[in-house]
Amino acid sequence: MCSRPEPREPLRHVAVIGGTHGNEMSGVYLAQYWLQAPGELQRPSFSAVPVLANPAATAACRRYVDCDLNRAFTSAFLTARVHPDDPYEAFDFVLDLHNTTASMGTCLIAESAHNIFAMHLCRHKLQSPELPCQVFLYQLPGEESYSVNSMAKSGLGLELGPQPQGVLWADLLVRMRALVATALDFIQLFNQGTAFPAFEMEAYRKVSSVDFPRTEAGDLAGNVHPQLQDQDFEPLRPGAPIFRMFSGKDMLYEGESTVYPVFINEAAYYEKDIAFLQTEKLMFSVPALPMLAP
Amino acid sequence: MCSRPEPREPLRHVAVIGGTHGNEMSGVYLAQYWLQAPGELQRPSFSAVPVLANPAATAACRRYVDCDLNRAFTSAFLTARVHPDDPYEAFDFVLDLHNTTASMGTCLIAESAHNIFAMHLCRHKLQSPELPCQVFLYQLPGEESYSVNSMAKSGLGLELGPQPQGVLWADLLVRMRALVATALDFIQLFNQGTAFPAFEMEAYRKVSSVDFPRTEAGDLAGNVHPQLQDQDFEPLRPGAPIFRMFSGKDMLYEGESTVYPVFINEAAYYEKDIAFLQTEKLMFSVPALPMLAP
Repeated sequence: MCSRPEPREPLRHVAVIGGTHGNEMSGVYLAQYWLQAPGELQRPSFSAVPVLANPAATAACRRYVDCDLNRAFTSAFLTARVHPDDPYEAFDFVLDLHNTTASMGTCLIAESAHNIFAMHLCRHKLQSPELPCQVFLYQLPGEESYSVNSMAKSGLGLELGPQPQGVLWADLLVRMRALVATALDFIQLFNQGTAFPAFEMEAYRKVSSVDFPRTEAGDLAGNVHPQLQDQDFEPLRPGAPIFRMFSGKDMLYEGESTVYPVFINEAAYYEKDIAFLQTEKLMFSVPALPMLAP
Repeated sequence: MCSRPEPREPLRHVAVIGGTHGNEMSGVYLAQYWLQAPGELQRPSFSAVPVLANPAATAACRRYVDCDLNRAFTSAFLTARVHPDDPYEAFDFVLDLHNTTASMGTCLIAESAHNIFAMHLCRHKLQSPELPCQVFLYQLPGEESYSVNSMAKSGLGLELGPQPQGVLWADLLVRMRALVATALDFIQLFNQGTAFPAFEMEAYRKVSSVDFPRTEAGDLAGNVHPQLQDQDFEPLRPGAPIFRMFSGKDMLYEGESTVYPVFINEAAYYEKDIAFLQTEKLMFSVPALPMLAP
């Protein structure tokens, strides 16, 4: 994975995608609303396009119908596409709106720290005191990109939680809407010729996943420990409890180093055999984003 | 609807049902566990039978596959059953375990106040200071019973929330388990010849349901108002806000009298066009439950 080059021209083609997972309601209903009232997504230098990504799954209020859209965009899938005019390809930048049942607060998801434009966007205002957020980097070293964002030249996932699947909560809707507005404002600043200096950044990078304890038949044998529930982005130290067995016994974290769990007890991950993801906390330098040539 | 006669004989055939809705996980996993370790459901005078009600829906982690099991047990369905040996018919009492995404806390659900045995069970310990709970009566006057419990001579639903669909939270599992244990202890006391005196009781009875605001196309046009979210069982007074439109405008409650909303923003009710149920708060007398004849 090499760094994405920073954009050399204004970003004119921007999409805001809801419903990549049809039961994550903040994005589903915002996209539906913006399709009727697109004015909110207009800026002087561009108009972002609202997209309802997965109408069949949205209608059924399920994550997906046949396969998980956020796991489908490998290069094999992309090159096999039968719709060469797929609109995703045309976008310079994509905001992909998600919810999680985990206590992730406001989380910005990028493939890696090499996406310099996305890192500057994370930094800009999104990390203001009024709207605190964390940055999660999902790509393992050497791993191929597979999310919806890989269809755009650059992109960022907005992951807000906790919110149950199939439910729309007022506070998360307001927060999602404010995040999208701030992101569009940043793109407008870039388009009109603002330069952004280099900075140091903190983020959480995926290391591995941990499955639930299971019976020999594969059924759950315990649940996420109450001391781990809702502790997303907090340090998990060796010896701390991670599961409580239905029999009453506790299971402890046996790793040798401190990790930072995220997506703790996410509903959609039960079928993927994931109770939580382990991340490491990184500090790294992000180079400056130069001003566009006039 | 006439009163159910109180039992004249010990209750020997008791079922504890999880998975009536396959994505309400406290009951699903407790039933799965008890099927392997049934000792927890034994009492001196009886052994309760764990039942996983809807294995196909449970496997798919969905509320139901073809139709909603908790809405299917009308008398037309029951008399049309092709399995005359259906085990539900044989039970003297059924505990039906549910979760909701609404902030219902610990809620006990019965068809009506005429189910005297269930009312005594609600009263007994379940309303102790250590485990506060509310009682919800779902049957409208003249309405036919349609839940799983109508298949047993008597029964009670345990509705714990908030918990997202498809997720198992430690604290709700512990609470559900304690409620089931307390209910079985009550049945044991009754079976061994304890009498229970008459008492005054408070409960919430369903009056009607309220749909979300919608566009002409039927899509949502707003969400549950932040001032109503999580206010289950609290008084809703005329003029209070109930929805916030995506356009920013508030919708107010225009009823003439105070009601008590429940199941506010329950995920499973979106497809039923229900944003919340309106209830009235009742006080009523429950007659004594006499001692069994030796």
